[in-house]
Amino acid sequence: MRAARYYGNKDIRIEEIDEPTAGAGEVLIDVAFCGICGTDLHEYLDGPIFCPTPDTPTSWTGETAPVTLGHEFSGVVAALGEGITDLEVGDTVVVEPYILKDGTDTGPDSTDYHLSEGMNFIGLGGGGGGLAEKLAVRRRWVHKIDPSIPLDQAALIEPLAVAYHGVQRSGAKAGDIAVIGGAGPIGLLTGAVLRALGVTVVISELSSLRRQKALDSGAADHALDPAAVDVAQEVHDLTGGKGADIAFEATSVQAVLDTLMDALRPTGVLLNISIWGHRSDFDMHKLVMKEIDLRGSIGYVNNHPAVIELVESGKIDLAPFITGRIQLEDLIDKGFDTLIHRNETAVKILVSPSGKGVDPA
Amino acid sequence: MRAARYYGNKDIRIEEIDEPTAGAGEVLIDVAFCGICGTDLHEYLDGPIFCPTPDTPTSWTGETAPVTLGHEFSGVVAALGEGITDLEVGDTVVVEPYILKDGTDTGPDSTDYHLSEGMNFIGLGGGGGGLAEKLAVRRRWVHKIDPSIPLDQAALIEPLAVAYHGVQRSGAKAGDIAVIGGAGPIGLLTGAVLRALGVTVVISELSSLRRQKALDSGAADHALDPAAVDVAQEVHDLTGGKGADIAFEATSVQAVLDTLMDALRPTGVLLNISIWGHRSDFDMHKLVMKEIDLRGSIGYVNNHPAVIELVESGKIDLAPFITGRIQLEDLIDKGFDTLIHRNETAVKILVSPSGKGVDPA
Repeated sequence: MRAARYYGNKDIRIEEIDEPTAGAGEVLIDVAFCGICGTDLHEYLDGPIFCPTPDTPTSWTGETAPVTLGHEFSGVVAALGEGITDLEVGDTVVVEPYILKDGTDTGPDSTDYHLSEGMNFIGLGGGGGGLAEKLAVRRRWVHKIDPSIPLDQAALIEPLAVAYHGVQRSGAKAGDIAVIGGAGPIGLLTGAVLRALGVTVVISELSSLRRQKALDSGAADHALDPAAVDVAQEVHDLTGGKGADIAFEATSVQAVLDTLMDALRPTGVLLNISIWGHRSDFDMHKLVMKEIDLRGSIGYVNNHPAVIELVESGKIDLAPFITGRIQLEDLIDKGFDTLIHRNETAVKILVSPSGKGVDPA
Repeated sequence: MRAARYYGNKDIRIEEIDEPTAGAGEVLIDVAFCGICGTDLHEYLDGPIFCPTPDTPTSWTGETAPVTLGHEFSGVVAALGEGITDLEVGDTVVVEPYILKDGTDTGPDSTDYHLSEGMNFIGLGGGGGGLAEKLAVRRRWVHKIDPSIPLDQAALIEPLAVAYHGVQRSGAKAGDIAVIGGAGPIGLLTGAVLRALGVTVVISELSSLRRQKALDSGAADHALDPAAVDVAQEVHDLTGGKGADIAFEATSVQAVLDTLMDALRPTGVLLNISIWGHRSDFDMHKLVMKEIDLRGSIGYVNNHPAVIELVESGKIDLAPFITGRIQLEDLIDKGFDTLIHRNETAVKILVSPSGKGVDPA
């Protein structure tokens, strides 16, 4: 079968590899669509980070480079390994792509398996990936979805779970006013989750195309240009001088962090949902004098059932966030290069390893 | 009467001023003891900050420099203004020294009056102060205490309320393991509150004298020297590899902040209870990957009743934290200079404006 394999920095190859089979306790999945994540771009440009090198595995699987990429995917059950009785061939599914230490299948009673030592991701640290025609995944991490959810939209359930977990960590509730710094994929999906919960959303974003996308996609009630207006002042004006209840940092840009600290009301919550490659120049005194809570959020933990319900019920429409469906062979040219160099209109580009459902040329 | 008056940077004068009287809704207090706070030292060395200048008032009282200093005090009711029926002359009291905008007497239903715009403190922004023989305070901010509490110890209820509020903001609970960076007055009092709640306390402190004080005063179960041991590693060893549940930053020192981030377990809470005069070089990526909550805390808000109960019930003994009782005339020489230059053994130095109860020479 065809797969996109990570060999190292700026070295991803589309090649033929053996098809996997479903071992005991595993589900074999025909991949329908797999999204390209910012993390994949980081591995390509700055990695390996989560990915192994040719000499050093980064997960308990012991796999070294090359590994198959892709962790945001949907698919159809192709075969069931021994002992699996609660799924059927043909079921549509998504995957919560964790690799936990020693392969443990931590259950729904855990609240922090996503932070466990040695945590890694399917499609980064090993275990196959969604940028291949097939992969086998342990039952614990497979979530069945209603067949009414289109499989291209279903591939966005993984990044939507990232946004959902961040929103849950923030404590946002109906009636709150939230301000989001950055209208990239995670900023937009965070806005979609917040609005589904009844929160009013203000997005701050330099790109006019992305501001328009935030409004058109239903991710924001207001979209502000931080180069043209004082975002903190605008938020105070919008809230009768009070300030935002919650803020989300989705850019890892210092100026955005400072703006959000100013836009928040006293006792507000600032949720950092971005990956910072550098330390921040943080205004601790402002955190103290406003009694702000700064919270970090990474991945998701037992959030998939609630996220799938949000999509199945129609409370969140993921269609507006899909801006391309490409073949596996076009991964670098039409996928990575578009996101790296011409990404103002791109939100989520999906890859179809089988070639089915791609956009007309 | 005699009072310590702040004229400006490094200019505090002990002088004779008129005695205040109790206006309608006010309580006239004979001050027994008044502690010297780190904030007073900041005003002296780096101010004016909360204090006004000769030209510019910093609170709604409209007062300009000079103002009377002192906000950590205990005393005895000397007279009652019109309309006060729930106190008697001779009652022992402490004061929650807020000056709120327009003099509002915000009630116990508010959870954020301490963060209201224009908030300032009696004894800094105006309204008299505890470093004088008498002052008049609005009834709202006067808290009656049991006469069994010695009045020197009662003067520590104000900084104890700062510590209590920080502990409350941290969410610490019985059985938790907390690590405190810094065994100054606030670090020690935070330890005392935590241990009263059933939390195990580890203090990190460079000074051996302060480490000994932390152990002798009941503020800590363990006292570590960060110059001699890897504090984060020691905390992990003490917790079976888990890490601390809660950490308190009470130094505003960058290295301490980094150590606390490392000492915390995933999903731990880092409570910043110190005043940072500079921005911090913050490891946002670590906050994200461990899902840490960084929370700011300032002052107190409706905490005095619970704090007074902790002292009245004997759960916290404040006596070990008093290291001197001096005359008003000795404020700079034996008070400020000791704390600024020879502060390893000093914790809380109290001033007796009346001269009663001072230590023998």
